[in-house]
Amino acid sequence: MRIVIPLQFWEIKPMQFSVIAKSTKGARAGLLDTDHGSIETPAFMPVGTHGVVKTVTPDELKEAGVQIVLSNTYHLYLRPGSGLVRKMGGLHRFMGWDGPILTDSGGFQIVSLSELARVSDEGVEFQSHLDGSRHFLTPELAVKIQEELGADIAMCLDEVVGFPTEKKEMQNVVERTLAWAQRCARARTKKNMALFGIVQGGVFDDLRASCAASLVEMDFDGYAVGGLALGEPRDLTWQSVKIAARALPRDKPRYLMGMGTPDDLLTGIDNGMDLFDCVIPTRNARNGTLFTSRGRVSIKIAAHREDPAPVDPECGCYTCRNFSRAYLRHLFVSGEMLGFRLNTIHNISYYTQLVSEARQTIVDGNFEDFLQATRGRWNDPLDDGPED
Amino acid sequence: MRIVIPLQFWEIKPMQFSVIAKSTKGARAGLLDTDHGSIETPAFMPVGTHGVVKTVTPDELKEAGVQIVLSNTYHLYLRPGSGLVRKMGGLHRFMGWDGPILTDSGGFQIVSLSELARVSDEGVEFQSHLDGSRHFLTPELAVKIQEELGADIAMCLDEVVGFPTEKKEMQNVVERTLAWAQRCARARTKKNMALFGIVQGGVFDDLRASCAASLVEMDFDGYAVGGLALGEPRDLTWQSVKIAARALPRDKPRYLMGMGTPDDLLTGIDNGMDLFDCVIPTRNARNGTLFTSRGRVSIKIAAHREDPAPVDPECGCYTCRNFSRAYLRHLFVSGEMLGFRLNTIHNISYYTQLVSEARQTIVDGNFEDFLQATRGRWNDPLDDGPED
Repeated sequence: MRIVIPLQFWEIKPMQFSVIAKSTKGARAGLLDTDHGSIETPAFMPVGTHGVVKTVTPDELKEAGVQIVLSNTYHLYLRPGSGLVRKMGGLHRFMGWDGPILTDSGGFQIVSLSELARVSDEGVEFQSHLDGSRHFLTPELAVKIQEELGADIAMCLDEVVGFPTEKKEMQNVVERTLAWAQRCARARTKKNMALFGIVQGGVFDDLRASCAASLVEMDFDGYAVGGLALGEPRDLTWQSVKIAARALPRDKPRYLMGMGTPDDLLTGIDNGMDLFDCVIPTRNARNGTLFTSRGRVSIKIAAHREDPAPVDPECGCYTCRNFSRAYLRHLFVSGEMLGFRLNTIHNISYYTQLVSEARQTIVDGNFEDFLQATRGRWNDPLDDGPED
Repeated sequence: MRIVIPLQFWEIKPMQFSVIAKSTKGARAGLLDTDHGSIETPAFMPVGTHGVVKTVTPDELKEAGVQIVLSNTYHLYLRPGSGLVRKMGGLHRFMGWDGPILTDSGGFQIVSLSELARVSDEGVEFQSHLDGSRHFLTPELAVKIQEELGADIAMCLDEVVGFPTEKKEMQNVVERTLAWAQRCARARTKKNMALFGIVQGGVFDDLRASCAASLVEMDFDGYAVGGLALGEPRDLTWQSVKIAARALPRDKPRYLMGMGTPDDLLTGIDNGMDLFDCVIPTRNARNGTLFTSRGRVSIKIAAHREDPAPVDPECGCYTCRNFSRAYLRHLFVSGEMLGFRLNTIHNISYYTQLVSEARQTIVDGNFEDFLQATRGRWNDPLDDGPED
């Protein structure tokens, strides 16, 4: 048995954020300091649902340029349990990742994954998707779980509903989200865990704006924009992001939740967002879709059968340095796990390179040119043809 | 398009082998030089069926102490095709492994995997297990495929039958194996690809001895003992190995095919064998069974739920340096591919450490003590209990 002393006894430095450059329209290059290191923003966070970014090690994440990972409170709470993770020294030690970790609150997964989720003012009652066991997640418990995990950045419990939702119902969602945010703020006990409020309000501009304003009054360490890309037309999505961004303070980080095509990242950055997460690069990697500087590549199609070139000649990742498209196709077609992993390494590397390049252009003052030159590049597949 | 110049035009150094130390009974420490580097024997070869040791990269194999990998002619011939591998620069380049590669002849897989295999003196007719396509593998084709792959060590096509087999039939098997060995020797065109003959003969001492003697007359670069661990009682297995070893020249490497529990390796070494291959460490890793210096560990059982210790405190592998049993169990229970991979890294590392330790004791003159102290260690599980 090892005695684990909770971090809060000696580390009380709160998160720091500073914007170091800004584009004319509002894209920001920033620096976010946490107890586990600094993050250059904008930054993309790969998703480590079960305390692991699927198929890869922490070393590989570092080599791929990852600065911060996201992990899911809902999944870790159910298995292996946040208490167990705490006993094992916290999530950083458990998963072997010594960089910053952001955890979500679990609310979104409960609604999307668990059975019979029932939301009341008190919290969310739900059944585990693993074994059907019953649980009740309150704002207080969401904070406690994230503290047990040892997150650097925690999220308030929020209510998430899809599109379309009636305005009256959305108003209730916003009110509940605000009440829960207040309870989360009161429940936290660890000063070195940053806590972000989440802006809800669907596609109703006035609700988005008022939700953001109310959260800002509560003075969170950062703010997330949530409840988007849930079926609404894409122009309304970005309109909502704009409205939220306008109401948020300039000196606090902004996190656009769950949206992560390469174009989403660029448009999000253009709209003043600093943090992003999405399963797209990792999930698509496992489906054989790779993002490159020239567009989207489907590694399984027959066109790559005898292709000795790397996935992306302009990419310096481990996969592109060492393996051909022909080999990656062979691994994919043979169902070899190494293929999923090499694809994952490439896609994550590509994402971090893209975002880092965007940051550099903000610093250099030519982000708009960069945006113009890259946007839409991944809409159509670069290759096409039969799989055999 | 890249122009690939076949290796044989500039590299013609044949394989070299020397025994540097021997135990009283006949365990050997040797050095095997190939075009792709030296191998300290005894050596264990992990199996890379589809041109990949499942879940791991060449870098990880190197770090795990692997000196040589085995790949399967049958699988690579069917997919992606040995001609394609040759066009991509050969198997070393294709899979990114610059160390030595041994390929089997494909005969064993044909009989065990394909449908409707029909053996005649000419060769083996079979249907692909992938798409039902019909193929005809001759000794000449087996050599050609292995040359296309660019193997450092190739195996003659042999006939493999299980236990029990009537003596008369086994006599035919041996005769056919010898005739095919002769044809393989004549068919080779690359001097720098070593070619091994395979001793068959089931559990009939006289057939084993005469098969070995006839192969030795053909003067191969090395010799394999095949057709064992196919259902016969274990004492007969080792009796056959002994008989074969006695008939083989001391200055050529000996490869015990497909047998690979840790105890098999030790007993094989004790009986003068130099090379080993088996899917046991890699397949068991993916089933959650880990080999350690203290015995066999089943990572999925509940006893490891909150265990912060590494799999093997005496192991210095990447997995043991970085992750706890609790985390490995969590990955396994969650079906995370990283778990299969970390387990694989450990098991392969453990195998290479065990064999390397055996080698050192041969050099130091205390192999028998080592054998006494370690043998049988993995028979009973170290841990036991429910999975939940």
